[in-house]
Amino acid sequence: MENPDIHVRSVGTILPGAPVTNTDLARHFDMTASFEQWIDTFVGTSTRHFAFDLGTGKRLYSLADLATEAGERALAGAGIGPDDLDLIVLGTWSPDLLIPATVNVVADRLGANRLATFQLQSGCAGAIQALDVAHQLLLGSRHRTALVIGADTCAKHYRTDLDLRTMEPARLINTVLFGDGAGATVLSREPGPGSAVLRRVSVQMVGLGRPPGQTAEWFGWGDQIPDHLPISEDYKAIEEHVPTLTVEMFQELLDDLGWVEDEADYLLPPQLSGQMTDRITARLDMPHLHEVSCVRQTGNMGNALPFFQLERVLPMMTAGDRALGLAIESSKWIKAGYALEKI
Amino acid sequence: MENPDIHVRSVGTILPGAPVTNTDLARHFDMTASFEQWIDTFVGTSTRHFAFDLGTGKRLYSLADLATEAGERALAGAGIGPDDLDLIVLGTWSPDLLIPATVNVVADRLGANRLATFQLQSGCAGAIQALDVAHQLLLGSRHRTALVIGADTCAKHYRTDLDLRTMEPARLINTVLFGDGAGATVLSREPGPGSAVLRRVSVQMVGLGRPPGQTAEWFGWGDQIPDHLPISEDYKAIEEHVPTLTVEMFQELLDDLGWVEDEADYLLPPQLSGQMTDRITARLDMPHLHEVSCVRQTGNMGNALPFFQLERVLPMMTAGDRALGLAIESSKWIKAGYALEKI
Repeated sequence: MENPDIHVRSVGTILPGAPVTNTDLARHFDMTASFEQWIDTFVGTSTRHFAFDLGTGKRLYSLADLATEAGERALAGAGIGPDDLDLIVLGTWSPDLLIPATVNVVADRLGANRLATFQLQSGCAGAIQALDVAHQLLLGSRHRTALVIGADTCAKHYRTDLDLRTMEPARLINTVLFGDGAGATVLSREPGPGSAVLRRVSVQMVGLGRPPGQTAEWFGWGDQIPDHLPISEDYKAIEEHVPTLTVEMFQELLDDLGWVEDEADYLLPPQLSGQMTDRITARLDMPHLHEVSCVRQTGNMGNALPFFQLERVLPMMTAGDRALGLAIESSKWIKAGYALEKI
Repeated sequence: MENPDIHVRSVGTILPGAPVTNTDLARHFDMTASFEQWIDTFVGTSTRHFAFDLGTGKRLYSLADLATEAGERALAGAGIGPDDLDLIVLGTWSPDLLIPATVNVVADRLGANRLATFQLQSGCAGAIQALDVAHQLLLGSRHRTALVIGADTCAKHYRTDLDLRTMEPARLINTVLFGDGAGATVLSREPGPGSAVLRRVSVQMVGLGRPPGQTAEWFGWGDQIPDHLPISEDYKAIEEHVPTLTVEMFQELLDDLGWVEDEADYLLPPQLSGQMTDRITARLDMPHLHEVSCVRQTGNMGNALPFFQLERVLPMMTAGDRALGLAIESSKWIKAGYALEKI
């Protein structure tokens, strides 16, 4: 039996508050212009949005707030209501609580009930993991319409009170790399105006024997162990492996679909940072592909980010256009990708 | 096209350390015999196992330790190795870290690589959510063999230093209700010796407009806010809704499968506590069903517990036997169930 087409019907996104510039960060942490230049050159992020107030540290939006708003926008975009949903899948690494899972709070706020809800604990590959689960469940016979959400906030881990002046770059980067946001998409067995077909989603853990490239502990501000940041990265490993894994996943998607490079039109590369994205696209070396990136404006929003790329590419696509989206999670090394085709 | 049969090939479980009796708890917290009687009468749990040392509070096993051991036992039981797996799904509410997801650490330790891994953030219904995702993914064409794991530890939330003598029962219960453990099962499109067919898995969030019945914050010991316990329950709501939701899910499973009550042989009821399980089975009122419960000996192990029931029922079943497993998550009200048939 041929699999039915699963359609990306709409995308909704939300960024909290006003953009926070590198100048804003430098001013808050009492840093000099060289700090701003360092962010620009070595990280490549110009602005990000925070779910908290940088000055006071006060939390302004919960993860459920952001995810609900993105979900509402996606439902409105698809012209459907909560009763039309059979399934909600949320990917996040930063849930509001351990129980209840944030996805169920979001379902309640959206007005959805008597449906399956799943929340994936995941990092940068989580949006595509959520797409994968929803896509495969829609290919079965039990579900017709799914809301897939990716949302993250660094609010619980962000320290607004640090003295950055003596901090080494590997720790400093955690104050400038991340941003907060949420995105959502409606997937359905029925097409809609402007929809594209999700041809393939692929997620593969490839971390056997490799130490984690990124770690985030599950506690937050309460645990202010002196000099302890709950997030850490191994940038050497990330710089070494992420471009390679991206090239592998790009090729695997083409092979799975029987597509050749020339038939792809849009590239939605991993968005770890502006600088890393440039390094990745240089390695991929596909100048004929139209790149869709946003990390320079949004910062790394984890599970939210791929939905911002999807929101940009969907209206650009015309009949026959193909797009490939990629994400690499350095935590325990997961490569993920998806392929979209406008018919 | 008829769906292929998905077979439960094996089950593996692990309980950490020696059983902790009510007398052990009473002695540790310097409580009297009436405390022991209260646990026995109002909670109905005799023993539980902890991943930490009650005397020192020292953590002895991580969630990854427990989940890996259960996974190894399930693989050995099915007579397969890590390379035979296409998919690992872990359900837990108590991950070791936020990133990497514990499922990926477990995959690495099992020796699995180049496969899809998912970790569901979930409470008491999480084991069945994990079964549901794995079952539906195996029904599709991409995966043949899955390892499904449920694991939980209350180590991060358990306070060994509390003064229980002045504590109200609604808070006190958190020191006696929970236990730690892990369970796993191999699901496969191929049958094996002693396997049974997973006929149906159903999970439904029904929390619209209902306040959470259980909450667990995502930080732990580090946040020793005075008089603050990061776990709380609304026992009145739990006692009111859980038996009703169990009856609903039981009936829905029978309806979905076209089975009648008389054709079921085994009942694996929700295991919130010994006392709640009695209340539920009294409400279900199916004395002809053979009940398979373990919460009195293990305590409430969250995502791990349904695998202990599954491990007990599987060797009891003979050709034609049918078993119904049920779990209710009171966090944001999820009803979940599955049906097993020996062929």
